[in-house]
Amino acid sequence: MNYTSLFEKIIKKRSYLCIGLDSEMEKLPPFLLKKKDPVFEFNKRIIDATHKYAVAYKPNVAFYECYGAEGWSSLEATVVYIREHYPDLFIIADAKRGDIGNTSKMYAKAFLGNMPFDAITVAPYMGEDSVTPFLSYNDKWVVLLALTSNKGADDFQYHNEDGIKLFERVLSVSQRWGTVNNMMYVVGATHAEMLKDIRKIVPDHFLLVPGVGAQGGSLEDVTRFGMNSKCGLLVNSSRGIIFADNSENFDKVAGEKAREMQLEMEKYLSQHKLI
Amino acid sequence: MNYTSLFEKIIKKRSYLCIGLDSEMEKLPPFLLKKKDPVFEFNKRIIDATHKYAVAYKPNVAFYECYGAEGWSSLEATVVYIREHYPDLFIIADAKRGDIGNTSKMYAKAFLGNMPFDAITVAPYMGEDSVTPFLSYNDKWVVLLALTSNKGADDFQYHNEDGIKLFERVLSVSQRWGTVNNMMYVVGATHAEMLKDIRKIVPDHFLLVPGVGAQGGSLEDVTRFGMNSKCGLLVNSSRGIIFADNSENFDKVAGEKAREMQLEMEKYLSQHKLI
Repeated sequence: MNYTSLFEKIIKKRSYLCIGLDSEMEKLPPFLLKKKDPVFEFNKRIIDATHKYAVAYKPNVAFYECYGAEGWSSLEATVVYIREHYPDLFIIADAKRGDIGNTSKMYAKAFLGNMPFDAITVAPYMGEDSVTPFLSYNDKWVVLLALTSNKGADDFQYHNEDGIKLFERVLSVSQRWGTVNNMMYVVGATHAEMLKDIRKIVPDHFLLVPGVGAQGGSLEDVTRFGMNSKCGLLVNSSRGIIFADNSENFDKVAGEKAREMQLEMEKYLSQHKLI
Repeated sequence: MNYTSLFEKIIKKRSYLCIGLDSEMEKLPPFLLKKKDPVFEFNKRIIDATHKYAVAYKPNVAFYECYGAEGWSSLEATVVYIREHYPDLFIIADAKRGDIGNTSKMYAKAFLGNMPFDAITVAPYMGEDSVTPFLSYNDKWVVLLALTSNKGADDFQYHNEDGIKLFERVLSVSQRWGTVNNMMYVVGATHAEMLKDIRKIVPDHFLLVPGVGAQGGSLEDVTRFGMNSKCGLLVNSSRGIIFADNSENFDKVAGEKAREMQLEMEKYLSQHKLI
């Protein structure tokens, strides 16, 4: 999927919603725990109930990895399920990987080669040769961390050389490694006001924006400062949708929450004259 | 295992060798491919043949993860095998994880809670709350990336604010998060001469040093500039030992290569009057 087809999907669905599958076992509706693979069962029902309102899903790999080989099977089953049943969805492995070249090549194989993810989040600390192996797959994307949504973002991401903050350097230097068709950036919704300056460095790239909802970011602000002429935004919500309810109706409630966000996004897309 | 007991193991074994289990399927001796779990079989034989000369093993998680749930089982079997048969060895998950707090907590559970690793490598980009969840396990360690051995280290790790490079800031700021008993740092052997200045910032901490051998770093230089009064070094070798031979005698040859490094290390420990 390239930049243009991602934009077309957003227009078709009137949504730039990404749903984060942070499917922590302890938070699942209790009745699901009797199932053979509770995490997959949960994901399947969430996806079935919300797919109309979302353009992307983002399984957070930590929440699968913590169950070892079994968790890994739940992750594989989830991404295969999405790909088979809803082939138009964009699927991001939220894995924050990154290592020396021959190792990143293996991580890329894991997520973009062997599993049908469209994209993977990558940490920039180790530089170019830790990122480019992920860019060698056709129609697959790197989502590079730039300015993250957590408190710890302050520790290093603002390290300032001659007026250029580290996250700004990540944004500018990494543009040489890929294109708008295979690279996007993580910018946390908790820094919505900074999107104005960030758009000067990356006017065209898609941005994956976590931190709306539980972490306190505002969809309205993110959209105001971050939307471009091809939308250029995937806004993620995880806990606010998937754990909105933990009764037997959890999927129905998740669908309603996703629908609410989609309607708000539809309004903003219309205000920006994109639909 | 704390700082003192790690030093005692080094003295006992007259070695500060860490063997990297970058056990790539394509590079295994062909006769092993008929086995049910070739990667585990390979690791087992390598460990049996080299354990006398090493204080630590470092499975590189990417090389397991790229085989999905099966690879994850090979990783689990490997770390359990080491823990059961050679309980005095220090085992590092080379995973380069790091994410917002509630996610890092899950990664910590995966490697330090559910699997019997002693330590995990962590990427610093996301700051304090991405690192501290790994420090909440007793007697377990974070190995934080500071100055890596690859070419891409130049891209961001030298970003310089008022004379303080990013990797130096990582070294100094992160010392507030842990102690010499639960935190060490990755410093690539390709920057041996810089260890002199790095020791001014972290005089006591252990350093995990990759990049000797295939990546061009020198054990002698690393030791000259990096060793402290408690050794303070774990020097990693992966391909130079585990893939030194791919005949049926691969383990014997790996043992000889490990023995060569141990002997060289014994010489340096003696020169530094630590044994």
